[in-house]
Formats: sequence, C-alpha cells, structure tokens
Amino acid sequence: VIRLAKHVRFEEVDAAGIVFFARYLNYCHEAMEHFFAGLDGGYVKLIRERHLGLPAVKAEVEYFSPLRYGDAFFIDTSIDHIGTTSCVLSYRIWREQADREIECAKIRHTCVVCSFPAVTKVAIPQDMRALMAAHPTR
Amino acid sequence: VIRLAKHVRFEEVDAAGIVFFARYLNYCHEAMEHFFAGLDGGYVKLIRERHLGLPAVKAEVEYFSPLRYGDAFFIDTSIDHIGTTSCVLSYRIWREQADREIECAKIRHTCVVCSFPAVTKVAIPQDMRALMAAHPTR
Amino acid sequence: VIRLAKHVRFEEVDAAGIVFFARYLNYCHEAMEHFFAGLDGGYVKLIRERHLGLPAVKAEVEYFSPLRYGDAFFIDTSIDHIGTTSCVLSYRIWREQADREIECAKIRHTCVVCSFPAVTKVAIPQDMRALMAAHPTR
Amino acid sequence: VIRLAKHVRFEEVDAAGIVFFARYLNYCHEAMEHFFAGLDGGYVKLIRERHLGLPAVKAEVEYFSPLRYGDAFFIDTSIDHIGTTSCVLSYRIWREQADREIECAKIRHTCVVCSFPAVTKVAIPQDMRALMAAHPTR
Repeated sequence: VIRLAKHVRFEEVDAAGIVFFARYLNYCHEAMEHFFAGLDGGYVKLIRERHLGLPAVKAEVEYFSPLRYGDAFFIDTSIDHIGTTSCVLSYRIWREQADREIECAKIRHTCVVCSFPAVTKVAIPQDMRALMAAHPTR
Repeated sequence: VIRLAKHVRFEEVDAAGIVFFARYLNYCHEAMEHFFAGLDGGYVKLIRERHLGLPAVKAEVEYFSPLRYGDAFFIDTSIDHIGTTSCVLSYRIWREQADREIECAKIRHTCVVCSFPAVTKVAIPQDMRALMAAHPTR
Repeated sequence: VIRLAKHVRFEEVDAAGIVFFARYLNYCHEAMEHFFAGLDGGYVKLIRERHLGLPAVKAEVEYFSPLRYGDAFFIDTSIDHIGTTSCVLSYRIWREQADREIECAKIRHTCVVCSFPAVTKVAIPQDMRALMAAHPTR
Repeated sequence: VIRLAKHVRFEEVDAAGIVFFARYLNYCHEAMEHFFAGLDGGYVKLIRERHLGLPAVKAEVEYFSPLRYGDAFFIDTSIDHIGTTSCVLSYRIWREQADREIECAKIRHTCVVCSFPAVTKVAIPQDMRALMAAHPTR
C-alpha cells in the first residue's frame, strides 16, 4: 500500500457543499501518479517520453461518507490484479476523526497499458509490473 | 430515455490527449440535471429552494472508446431502478461516425435523495418519482 | 458581438457558494471557441488539423457581481484589437434579473496565434482576421 | 514572500498540450490558501467558521512561458497593497531549468473581504492584516 495525504481544495465542492462525486476519480488519478513515482522518471516520463498511458476501461466508486472543504484525507493505493496488458488498482479514501478512521470512498480502477497517440494495447512493461507486484491489496 | 447532446471542450482532455476519465462523471451529472429539468424549477430549485440533493452512493463506469477534443457525443439517460430513498440512473455515452453509433461509455449511478445541509436520507418526492417512472431503461 | 448563453453548472461553485473566480476564464474560452465556430471546421479544426492555437499572453478579469448555481447568463464576445500575430478579445458576462441587465464580469484576453507543438508565433491567418474584423468591440 | 511548490497534474493541460490558461488562477488560489495557513485554523476556518471570504474584484494574469504535464514550479505569494476592506495579492509563477529561473506567469489579484452568505464587505480582520503586512512585495 502506498499512501497519499491530501486535503479538500476550495473549488472541489459542489452546490450541495460536499466534494463533487467526479472529483474522487481526480483524487485516484493523483494517487496513481504518486504510486508510479517509484518508476524511473515516474508517470510523467511514462507519458512524455515512453509514450505509454493507462486509459481506464472500468471505474467503480463506492461513496460512504462525504468530504467537505478543508477536510484532510488519505488515499491508500494497492494492486488487486496484474494481467498481461491490464491491471486493477484499488484505492481506499479515508480520514481521521477523533482517533477513528472514517471510510469515505473505495474505488476499483481497471486500466489497460496502451501506447499513445494510437491508443493500442501493449504488454505491461517489466518495471511497472515489478512495482505493482510489490504492493498487492492485502 | 432523455438525450443530451454535447461536444468535448478544449480543457477536458488530459496529457494523453483523450478526455480525462473523471470527466465522464461530470458529463453524467450534467445529463442528470438535464433529466430533472422536467421538474418544476428543475434540479436548481431542488438544490437551492427545496434543499434536496442526490449524493452518489455508487458509480460504475465502463469505458469503451476514447473521446477527443471537439468530438460531438450524446448522453442517453434512463432509470434502472426506483427505491424508497434511492434510485439508479443509467447513462449511455455514444457518438456517430460515418452513420454508425460508436459506444463510448456506459455508467450506472446510484443516488440517495437527501436533505441538505445535514445530508440525511428522505423518501423520493412524488414529482421526482413520477418523472423517473416515465423514463425506464428499456 | 457574438453571444453565448450559458447557465452555472452544479460543480462550478466553490466553498463560498459562488462561481469560482478561475471559472470565468473557462467561460471565456468557451465563448472564444463559439466565436471561432464561424471558421471552416471551427476552433477544433484549428487545433487538430491546422495545428494552430491562441495561447494567452494576458488576461484581465473584473468581477462585478457573483454568479450562483443555476444562474442563466450571457457572454458577449467582441474584438478590441487585431495585430500581426496577436489579438485582444473582449468578453462581457451579464445576466438578466427583473428585466434589468446585471453586469457580472468583464474580461480582456490577449492572445498570440502560435503553431503547435512548438508554440511559435505566426501571422494571424486571413480567415481568422476576417472573422475578427467583422466583430469589433463597439 | 511565501512559497508553494507544485507540479503540473495530468488533467491540467488542454488540447494544445499546455496548462490551460484558467488553471493559473486555480494555482493562485491554492497559493492564497497556503499563504493564509498562517492564520489560526487557516483559510478553512475563515470560510467554514468565521464565514468570511475573499471574493476577487480583479485578476490580471500575464503569461510568459507555457507549463507542461509534470513540470515542477513554484508560486511566490506576496502582498502589494492592504486597504480597509480590500487587498492586492501578487503571485510569481516560475520554474527552474538548468539552474536558471524561468518566469512562467505573474498575477495581481485584488480581493475584498466579505461576510458570507450575504457577500457584504467587512473590514479586514486584524489577524489577516498582520499576516499580510509581514509579507510585502519587495
């Protein structure tokens, strides 16, 4: 599990005063970039120099408890599954309140490694595979 | 089915050149607001005057084909399920190319009707229920 | 003057409950794309096929009256100045209330026509120049 | 001067491949929140408990050099002017390349302290005034 600490930004809430439901996928992507920071050059080099990306084929979000402006929270990223060209990332979004852990959301994110700009599937490169294998969902 | 026509905006793509995966939920929310435009005062009055909202408890997105800047697309919204306090909206995102329909994404969006700011569950109001009942997923 | 009608979306407000100040530039860009829809293939073809863009060199926003979720508003786009490679677009954002026009914001947006991906200045193409010349700020 | 270090996120670029011009104001707001972190409870308490906010009355952005996905950059925030109810924040956005400082953008941001939700002007509270006075633009 690789953990990212964040807090809710001023413009991330909606007219109901809670974090907009789509934002959780922005948060996940940031956690994914943070996860792949362990690669040489990180996710940035993957995109800009290796011309590889991980377009989503599926995203399943369960929302448990709303987040509001200023709330501090954590995203724990781990790997549920590693296939030939695809992988499943798992994210747990939670915060602390009075020494208790509040579950906020849980996301399963299925990606396929693709070369860009053509968006064609390729086998998961060895360095990505090794990094993912080191962080399985418990 | 209620249809919304849109096109991809300049800032909706990511560094890989395709619509960012979280944006599809922004698109769905816009389609949901469009769906509920059939209520007196629409979704806006629901939020601003009736102090009701529909926070998501679940969102499942399947991505089939990427969208790029300028692509015209459609969102078809229909209702999969109506419960006591919760409902399931279904969205089909598709575009036309050479007289063929290209499936882009499919989303199931489970919401609970809540009163705000407390975010407490309430029974689905009668006007919302009637509107939803008129547009079942085929 | 070319006019675009819009309304404030659910996720465009901030934790203070009014449209986030950066969003006005998103609105302007949409108005600019709408303005250039008069070109063959519009702004989309400009970017995707002609590999030209209009990066901003300056943006000056004056905010007069806040916008809230659901507010309907208009953006009037006109051209303040046309240079060799640069131009100045002017946007007036306003809404109607009880038959009166409420000024919401005013933006001056200085752009330079550039070829991409190198981001090097080029002379304003003739079709863009003609379209802009037809819509001067009064 | 109070400095914030950031890097360009995956979804912050536009279809031309550079950071979308509106995003610079998102960056500034984050730098402003970071600046006011020096208050007891920070900007979050200001908004959520003291019901004060700083809506913009003016924002002037000059863009010097584009930012791309993954670029690391800095935002230096300082105070140009402190009035009775209004203040002017100044932001310098820059990055390092081969030991040189590249100027990316410069922003002047005029705000008025207001009480919410009514959005009525109030005198700048003493703690805000003191914090701002300690960080004048050189």
